[in-house]
Amino acid sequence: MEFSEKRQPLVVIVGAGFGGLRAAKRLAGGPVDVILVDQHNYHTFMPLLYQVARAALEPEEIAYPVRRVFRGERNINFRLARVEAVDLLRQRLLTSQGPITYDYLILAAGSATNFFGQADIQQHAYGLHDLKDAVALRNHLLTVFEQVTQETDPARRAALLTFVIVGGGPTGVELAGAYSELIQTVLAQEYPQLDFSQVRILLLEGGPALLAALPPDLREAALASLQAKGVEVRLRTAVASATADEVRLKDGTVIPTATLVWAAGVRAADLAATLGQATARGGRVRVRETLQLPTTPNVFVIGDIADLEEDGKALPQVAQVAMQQGTHAAANILHHLHGEPLVPFRYHDLGTMATIGRHAAVGQIGPWRLKGFIGWLMWLFIHIVQLIGVRNRLFVLINWLQDYLFYARSARLITTEDMQRLGEPNIREDSGEPIRAANEMAVQTGD
Amino acid sequence: MEFSEKRQPLVVIVGAGFGGLRAAKRLAGGPVDVILVDQHNYHTFMPLLYQVARAALEPEEIAYPVRRVFRGERNINFRLARVEAVDLLRQRLLTSQGPITYDYLILAAGSATNFFGQADIQQHAYGLHDLKDAVALRNHLLTVFEQVTQETDPARRAALLTFVIVGGGPTGVELAGAYSELIQTVLAQEYPQLDFSQVRILLLEGGPALLAALPPDLREAALASLQAKGVEVRLRTAVASATADEVRLKDGTVIPTATLVWAAGVRAADLAATLGQATARGGRVRVRETLQLPTTPNVFVIGDIADLEEDGKALPQVAQVAMQQGTHAAANILHHLHGEPLVPFRYHDLGTMATIGRHAAVGQIGPWRLKGFIGWLMWLFIHIVQLIGVRNRLFVLINWLQDYLFYARSARLITTEDMQRLGEPNIREDSGEPIRAANEMAVQTGD
Repeated sequence: MEFSEKRQPLVVIVGAGFGGLRAAKRLAGGPVDVILVDQHNYHTFMPLLYQVARAALEPEEIAYPVRRVFRGERNINFRLARVEAVDLLRQRLLTSQGPITYDYLILAAGSATNFFGQADIQQHAYGLHDLKDAVALRNHLLTVFEQVTQETDPARRAALLTFVIVGGGPTGVELAGAYSELIQTVLAQEYPQLDFSQVRILLLEGGPALLAALPPDLREAALASLQAKGVEVRLRTAVASATADEVRLKDGTVIPTATLVWAAGVRAADLAATLGQATARGGRVRVRETLQLPTTPNVFVIGDIADLEEDGKALPQVAQVAMQQGTHAAANILHHLHGEPLVPFRYHDLGTMATIGRHAAVGQIGPWRLKGFIGWLMWLFIHIVQLIGVRNRLFVLINWLQDYLFYARSARLITTEDMQRLGEPNIREDSGEPIRAANEMAVQTGD
Repeated sequence: MEFSEKRQPLVVIVGAGFGGLRAAKRLAGGPVDVILVDQHNYHTFMPLLYQVARAALEPEEIAYPVRRVFRGERNINFRLARVEAVDLLRQRLLTSQGPITYDYLILAAGSATNFFGQADIQQHAYGLHDLKDAVALRNHLLTVFEQVTQETDPARRAALLTFVIVGGGPTGVELAGAYSELIQTVLAQEYPQLDFSQVRILLLEGGPALLAALPPDLREAALASLQAKGVEVRLRTAVASATADEVRLKDGTVIPTATLVWAAGVRAADLAATLGQATARGGRVRVRETLQLPTTPNVFVIGDIADLEEDGKALPQVAQVAMQQGTHAAANILHHLHGEPLVPFRYHDLGTMATIGRHAAVGQIGPWRLKGFIGWLMWLFIHIVQLIGVRNRLFVLINWLQDYLFYARSARLITTEDMQRLGEPNIREDSGEPIRAANEMAVQTGD
């Protein structure tokens, strides 16, 4: 019912991230039918997830319905389903909604937070990998400040006001800068009774420097910028274990905290393991230069879930690689259909950027190295332009303009119903029923 | 820690709805300390909840953080807590965060959906009374259309495309009109394969007319407008029972449907029952003309949770009453403090309106009766002006302008993780493990 009557080759794309979306766009209007499968009905603009986590943007400002993207494209169909496994022999996917067969498959299922097998960290840390993570972290942050206003134990207050972020890549750096500003400016206005000098933001990085992908002078600019914002940066520092109340470092230091954010790495999505193929670091699937599975020419694997080396170095797990590979895999499928030779993939590095709060960023775009305010403007421009949809761009721009001019973000709703997080109900011996009876007594005996 | 050192009389306000917010605003800067308690950290602009339910507005566009409202007001404190009971004798509230004592209490805890004791309806129907309800209904609506694209059984497809809304008040009328437009325009574009002539929207009302609060000609205009949009309006029709798959009417008719929306009435919030006071229809607490509890002069009860008659008729449960009573109760507390006599409350009816979709509304504002496009412009103006916060007003206006001009709402994310709703995973005999083994076999035996 979902397909046109004349039978064209069917390309199934798993994942509506940067790679999957680009692949589908390349195939729109082409001589194939396409089914794009994702477990969400929207595309997430992941580079701005941390802005949702700091309550500066709303989920829908960085997400966009997939059906909207392909409205009017008659050969692109969307299917809301979770893909459980790939059955290479029978050329089909097993999904939460039943099997989907394919002629060609593009696997763009992305990545997940890598907790490196540490169950305690997985249990107590907040990841920052999808919209749900970001909303959970935002709700937690805002709830912590409500908790602090009601907490009388000084040690517990100190722990609530300590925020530990692990991972000195772009996500960790951006989040640390953003949290520092949010707390010292906006929240300080709204909680006038709190002593904000007690707030500590720690950024822990296992290696010798932040933002390892950037050249040394930009790394140092980032470090200096964070320190100027009051972030305590600790290099060569690794987490050993975590509980709900504290983080223990490998050197034995214990940091009491209610907030551990884990931005220390990603691994391939679970789907990779069902392929039964050779995998590389983080469970990523090794692919040919043409992006095909080595054993299966009609299956292409792209983006974070794929492992491809170039000049002896694995390609980074970034949006640019996924986007370029998406377009490339789609083009190679068309080559294959037309009996033409497939083309090896080459990555064109357009640069790397990271922002450190309200008006500072560092980046390298081709030959240019940017920092400070100019870097931030460039960062803003690139991200706004890439956001899908006129409405989203406009709203994000308004939000940021307002933010920049007034420090006034209004998007700070705690959207969880999870009142236990605030502490146990405190009505033990004074339960509702006796109170009601007592109140009724008062009514009967008069005022 | 949250209070200033010099001890002023403490006014505790329960509920950050229309009534509680107005009361706190009246007391801002006054000779009292105020604690405003709510289980959410935001105020919800309830008249636009149905716009969230139809995915035209986002939650944060109709909600506003309470701390933002009172930023800079040093005598107003906010407390995030759920109030479990009122202990009138000891002058304190029992809350999820421990007890809160008061000198004066303003109870503005609002209302809840009234299922009239029908557990089956409560279980299977969607209410539309808070942000959580609205988001749940939106997610359901969007998920239903994803389900239909994957459903092959014609009877089940028909049930999925049947939407039953119960209650012919403003909420039911507005939602029916909005759903009709959303489905026939926006969704029809995004699901080109679906036959939208199968869609049925039923609006059931137990009484003889829609919008009973309006004069007959406006009621009839509303009815005609809904019918023109393809909504099947059934008057003098009541629901007897409901399951997940169907609704049974009192006359025996069975309507297979996956969507039952219950907008048929409200009752007082549960907190009312803990007072042990005389209650009226819907569990509302009877109050004196001064808005005081009859037995307890320092406790004021306002808005939907209060019952007060004027000229022998109970005041309606609408925002205008709550807002006027909020200001009035606060003023009476100040009178009491100054030893002045309290003033009886009188309601100034500013009118009633309901919108029926994109550019039609009916209403009575003082002497004016409005309908059609002019009515809609007035409705829009009143609602935009009342929305709290410049940002929210601006965003809602942009959203509506875009909506009006392009029928292009982008806020259609399904934000639940609840994949079961789409049906059971369909991988029984084909579970992941055998597939992985088979795939590995394929690898070993080569291409």
